Amino acid sequence: MAQTVRGYTATKGQLIDRLARIEGQVRGIAKMVDEDRYCIDVLTQINAVRAALDKVALGLLDGHARHCLAGEGGGPTDPDEQVKELMGAVGRMISR
Amino acid sequence: MAQTVRGYTATKGQLIDRLARIEGQVRGIAKMVDEDRYCIDVLTQINAVRAALDKVALGLLDGHARHCLAGEGGGPTDPDEQVKELMGAVGRMISR
Amino acid sequence: MAQTVRGYTATKGQLIDRLARIEGQVRGIAKMVDEDRYCIDVLTQINAVRAALDKVALGLLDGHARHCLAGEGGGPTDPDEQVKELMGAVGRMISR
Amino acid sequence: MAQTVRGYTATKGQLIDRLARIEGQVRGIAKMVDEDRYCIDVLTQINAVRAALDKVALGLLDGHARHCLAGEGGGPTDPDEQVKELMGAVGRMISR
Repeated sequence: MAQTVRGYTATKGQLIDRLARIEGQVRGIAKMVDEDRYCIDVLTQINAVRAALDKVALGLLDGHARHCLAGEGGGPTDPDEQVKELMGAVGRMISR
Repeated sequence: MAQTVRGYTATKGQLIDRLARIEGQVRGIAKMVDEDRYCIDVLTQINAVRAALDKVALGLLDGHARHCLAGEGGGPTDPDEQVKELMGAVGRMISR
Repeated sequence: MAQTVRGYTATKGQLIDRLARIEGQVRGIAKMVDEDRYCIDVLTQINAVRAALDKVALGLLDGHARHCLAGEGGGPTDPDEQVKELMGAVGRMISR
Repeated sequence: MAQTVRGYTATKGQLIDRLARIEGQVRGIAKMVDEDRYCIDVLTQINAVRAALDKVALGLLDGHARHCLAGEGGGPTDPDEQVKELMGAVGRMISR
């Protein structure tokens, strides 16, 4: 059964679809560079890919918070360690 | 009793101390602008303030994940709503 | 004479005003933490400060690109070094 | 002749190589999701892609500042419009 989609939550299939689309976008950017397209337009496409990646990351984090913290999906079982790991991931996403 | 400091976790006193330091840093940046200091040096100070603010935000988020999700501190009590709210906050921090 | 305001461009007075407002916002956040206000609300205020700081940083960078690169305001005079320094500043703002 | 590589500057060939590598990384992330790999590990890979994209964006911006602002490569010829466009691009990269 597919999980309910709510907010950032996404099913595995949706995440894979989004990543396939991102892969195509990156290929399109390489083509733009190859064709010497105007740099500002290329940067706009790079920003679109970053926004799409952020959405995938949030979808994963949401699923992680819901499922892994519920004791499923591997990872630490100690709540303290779980929050520490989650905050480490959020910290790396913010302070890139 | 003070909470244990571990990773991003910070006591209320530590967060307030950090915010007082950030306030002083912002005042210092205004002084640099007023004195026509070299822009690249001012930008370096702005980056330092942003990094310090990120650390405060992570400290708060860590405390939130630990305490509020445990049903303390107000906010939604439904786990689904809690994760949704938490992810909303993370999303706004990432896609600023 | 005041500089023309266009896009991110800001006069020195405007930048100082914005920084004074940011200083007040940071003080307000410390007060919220002291009063044990709901963490998600505090995070919303932190995001507002970060957005305000980004605007100041862009205003400075804009002024830098306009004036310093024109050979005024100190800094390197070699165009190659100027672009290198500018990109270094942008890089630190992006990959925080 | 290849352009000199200095700092963020990159030749067209280097940018295309990096983008091909990023495309492969994104494909690898989709595979990780498909194999139900631990979410925190997937997030680490997403962060690596974002950092790689930032490097490409800075390489493009550096080339833009060097070449397009020198009147080559299309885009506005009025210096005021050029800086405005450049700052718009930087602003969108920062406040994503």
